[in-house]
Amino acid sequence: MKSFKFEVLISLKKGILDPQGSATEKVLKRLNYPVNSVRFGKNIELTVNEETEEKALKIVNEIADKLLSNPVLEKYEIKLLSTEVLA
Amino acid sequence: MKSFKFEVLISLKKGILDPQGSATEKVLKRLNYPVNSVRFGKNIELTVNEETEEKALKIVNEIADKLLSNPVLEKYEIKLLSTEVLA
Repeated sequence: MKSFKFEVLISLKKGILDPQGSATEKVLKRLNYPVNSVRFGKNIELTVNEETEEKALKIVNEIADKLLSNPVLEKYEIKLLSTEVLA
Repeated sequence: MKSFKFEVLISLKKGILDPQGSATEKVLKRLNYPVNSVRFGKNIELTVNEETEEKALKIVNEIADKLLSNPVLEKYEIKLLSTEVLA
């Protein structure tokens, strides 16, 4: 049995309005920062115990798709951060 | 003049309670997912127009430190995603 640590990066799809991002951009511009575009997203670190990386990745894909992200507005990327063998 | 696209990854410092993460973990466990720990963070993509990468990075560091993160609870990482030469 192994412990797999994944990072799920959830961001808004292109063209979807990001009110938080545009509000932040306005403030930064008013403070004279040479900022052009600001987009907010979520990143979730989660650890899954499974026998193989493949099984663990399948589970994280299902969690990201069904529970963590809104498929209408958001897209997600999954990265494996680390693997640990459990005694 | 160049356009630098950065990603600022903001996460809670170790030991800081993550209510959103623990609530999500409980739900995932109840749904029988073999999940161990869940931590939420923010990722912000922002584009800065500057002459050099060094100047742009200095600005993003200042923005991340002073405006985007709470230094008491959060830590941040900055990654350069892409560079574009402006006409």
